[in-house]
Amino acid sequence: MNKSIFYHAGCPVCVSAEQDIISLIGEQNVQIIHLGEQQDQIQVAETAGLKSVPALLTPNGNVLHINFGASIEDLKN
Amino acid sequence: MNKSIFYHAGCPVCVSAEQDIISLIGEQNVQIIHLGEQQDQIQVAETAGLKSVPALLTPNGNVLHINFGASIEDLKN
Repeated sequence: MNKSIFYHAGCPVCVSAEQDIISLIGEQNVQIIHLGEQQDQIQVAETAGLKSVPALLTPNGNVLHINFGASIEDLKN
Repeated sequence: MNKSIFYHAGCPVCVSAEQDIISLIGEQNVQIIHLGEQQDQIQVAETAGLKSVPALLTPNGNVLHINFGASIEDLKN
């Protein structure tokens, strides 16, 4: 299986969801990207369909927006 | 690992998320509950912290609200 990508921005909601996702699907199956620190990934994430963080981009290209931490618009510095 | 519970209400957003969740964490690890058909489970789900569907209740008791299909209030008949 290809890896999923978990996008977050370091907020408490994100960190909590990250722990849950890792324990559910396994650390080896998910790449973690902190959009607050990796600004160059914001455009990539948006193109993939990301609207908010935390969110999980699945191997088949679907975006699962989980709870609600922050709008992706708010991450653009 | 205890099973997670995936709550949904049959809406297209729910069905899409259900397929993703099953493929990510494995069908044997998740119980599916259709709150539109199992009205007696709505109170149980609310007590667990469910605010909307689709959502995943993890084995450690956290609720991951995924995308947004319907508010749990709208499911009460």
